[in-house]
Amino acid sequence: MKADTLQEQARQLDGQDELASFRQAFVREAPELVYLLGNSLGRLPRATAQRLQTVVREEWGERLIRGWSEGWMDLPQRIGEKLGELVGARQGELIVADSTSANLYKVVVAALRLRPGRTKIVTDDLNFPSDLYILQGAIEASGKRHQLQIVPADDGIHGPVSTLADAIDEETAVLALSHTVFKSAYTYDMAALTKQAQEKGALVIWDLSHAVGVVPIDLQGAGADFAVGCTYKYLSGGPGAPAFLYVRAGLQEDAHNPLSGWMGQERPFDFGLAYEPAGGVRRFLTGTPPVLSLAAIEPGVDLVLAAGMAQVRAKSVRQTEYLLTLWEEKLEPLGFALRSPRDSKRRGSHVALGHPEAWRIAQALKAEMGVVPDFRRPDNMRFSVAPLYTSYQEIYEAVARLQTVIEHKLYENYPAEMATVT
Amino acid sequence: MKADTLQEQARQLDGQDELASFRQAFVREAPELVYLLGNSLGRLPRATAQRLQTVVREEWGERLIRGWSEGWMDLPQRIGEKLGELVGARQGELIVADSTSANLYKVVVAALRLRPGRTKIVTDDLNFPSDLYILQGAIEASGKRHQLQIVPADDGIHGPVSTLADAIDEETAVLALSHTVFKSAYTYDMAALTKQAQEKGALVIWDLSHAVGVVPIDLQGAGADFAVGCTYKYLSGGPGAPAFLYVRAGLQEDAHNPLSGWMGQERPFDFGLAYEPAGGVRRFLTGTPPVLSLAAIEPGVDLVLAAGMAQVRAKSVRQTEYLLTLWEEKLEPLGFALRSPRDSKRRGSHVALGHPEAWRIAQALKAEMGVVPDFRRPDNMRFSVAPLYTSYQEIYEAVARLQTVIEHKLYENYPAEMATVT
Repeated sequence: MKADTLQEQARQLDGQDELASFRQAFVREAPELVYLLGNSLGRLPRATAQRLQTVVREEWGERLIRGWSEGWMDLPQRIGEKLGELVGARQGELIVADSTSANLYKVVVAALRLRPGRTKIVTDDLNFPSDLYILQGAIEASGKRHQLQIVPADDGIHGPVSTLADAIDEETAVLALSHTVFKSAYTYDMAALTKQAQEKGALVIWDLSHAVGVVPIDLQGAGADFAVGCTYKYLSGGPGAPAFLYVRAGLQEDAHNPLSGWMGQERPFDFGLAYEPAGGVRRFLTGTPPVLSLAAIEPGVDLVLAAGMAQVRAKSVRQTEYLLTLWEEKLEPLGFALRSPRDSKRRGSHVALGHPEAWRIAQALKAEMGVVPDFRRPDNMRFSVAPLYTSYQEIYEAVARLQTVIEHKLYENYPAEMATVT
Repeated sequence: MKADTLQEQARQLDGQDELASFRQAFVREAPELVYLLGNSLGRLPRATAQRLQTVVREEWGERLIRGWSEGWMDLPQRIGEKLGELVGARQGELIVADSTSANLYKVVVAALRLRPGRTKIVTDDLNFPSDLYILQGAIEASGKRHQLQIVPADDGIHGPVSTLADAIDEETAVLALSHTVFKSAYTYDMAALTKQAQEKGALVIWDLSHAVGVVPIDLQGAGADFAVGCTYKYLSGGPGAPAFLYVRAGLQEDAHNPLSGWMGQERPFDFGLAYEPAGGVRRFLTGTPPVLSLAAIEPGVDLVLAAGMAQVRAKSVRQTEYLLTLWEEKLEPLGFALRSPRDSKRRGSHVALGHPEAWRIAQALKAEMGVVPDFRRPDNMRFSVAPLYTSYQEIYEAVARLQTVIEHKLYENYPAEMATVT
């Protein structure tokens, strides 16, 4: 049977997997749970649980205030340097701080100030809504001197590259995009779009949240101006873990952080009354960082560095390809539509599938099948592979359980009306 | 001998202390360490270490993404409500989010927008420099339409109340002050100054960082417009723990958060493209909160609530009074100057002492005497009492060790040149 062939293939692929040993580096409390949501909240690395124990009991509990001079003060830059290796940043270009939203606000306000007289921010409707909200707020707070142009996507899957390029003109101060978009996992050609925007004199801000740790990124090679991103998805930094912020070295001296806080002050312990920005990207720090959540980021970053981005990406592509094969064989006949690019070059590490009954299917999966679903209105489900801990057999299992829900119409027992929070 | 009398008094006061049992609620890894720095980083509550274990291993490790619908999503408001009880906020007026600096930015930009046409922010040079930096940044980011007037303090100890009142005029959009100031612990009459400012049509922002959890605060009674503050000092929320933000109910509907993020969106899971602010103070949330650091705040707040603010304040006053007696008897003769108010009504929970050799004394205390000093340039030391875990005998011990350093000139072995980070 075809089904058995694909199941057997999963076993074989797991057997050949060079990254298989990394699975042991993560906590798995419920072995029967199929978890394909590394794109939302990455699993807990064992080393992180250990590290937090040390930070809480020894550093805070025992060393108390001395923790600041014994390592905490350097965390935003030290972890930032490691993270920078993953995204092609040079030393001194990337720091860990605040939330992705706060960081986007900082860099977009800085970027607008670097392009006085220009009146437009260009983005698209594939961008994460949270980013759009921040762009809107930044425009309001800066005195409504700019317009936000949200370019519509061609078909909701692929990026409207040609339309985007048309939208960027001499009035454009900033192009702000998600590198890998949250719905379809469509992944922009960062270098090409950056070049197009810069040729018109615009600055480019990339949100790397859905790409970092699983899609190869070369900020320096692409000449990107600014970038932000979160650490709690493929980096396994923990729920709501502090985000990161990148400013190209050549821009740093003229870039002004509107949230000019003491951590970004040149000499924070002089207690001078006038703000003097620190040199380098450190000037984009703001307040005192949440040390527990910040320290928890490091072990996950270390794991990706140890595995190597090339290996991680190779496995991610093989796994999403395998998932597409399963979809074609088993799910397309059951009414699931592919909402992600078929071309792996343009695809991140998740696959989106649409189904008219997606909401009820998601409820059944969660309640009866030991699968935590990822549902996005109105009718989308996302299945993400995290190469460090997802196995091929888990992917097979997720699809098999999905088949069961459809074939036995298990979803019909669940309400069609959507809950507010999913 | 006088010394023995005061030491005996410490024993008696500890014996009569109604809050003595709370000392057991905190981790004490090094019993010989004298720690009078609760104004900088509060001690670790035992319950917090337990709570974090649960959040990390069970909630993140086991429940994974489900943690969000099983409690994390509500943390900013749920902990905010508890904290609101400590500062006289009504339900729906206070949330936990971001850093004090980021929160100050949000509320000052919102306040300026509520007072169009007015051109001035008034503050004083007793305010924490980090707050001044943010006020400067907010003015820059809003198009330099405002001036920051930093009123000088009379003598560096007391607040220049009369001068401040003179500075507030019809051009003043905002008065922004620290309630208890970081150097001297001078504590403003919040109700009186709020009234004076509001009579001129200005809005008032209070930074409660050095007051919350140890000084009685009644935001509602004082009619305060906005407030911010940190949770890692007397609330023992942990290093860099998320801060809080208060907006008076009557202002909320018209107040705009410049950092308009998805957590403050009316329906965050609808993924609409246009930002619609949530009702109430929730609109001042921005990005995804750092859950580990956020959850760690709650046990410390619970302890203050269990002890009762009136009891906490009464002990704080008794303890700083005892410290002033020790200063008068033992330290003033050795050249220490009092840099805090003598009137307990105007004093927070720390006492600042100046000495020409303060920097070298601090080094000797740290290296030889098991006291972690708090030194502030150029010549200030601060000694803080945290009524939940500071004993009178510790206060006596700190002063005794300080005497030893002076009388044996132990500080003379240390360099006079100041290190960058202290």
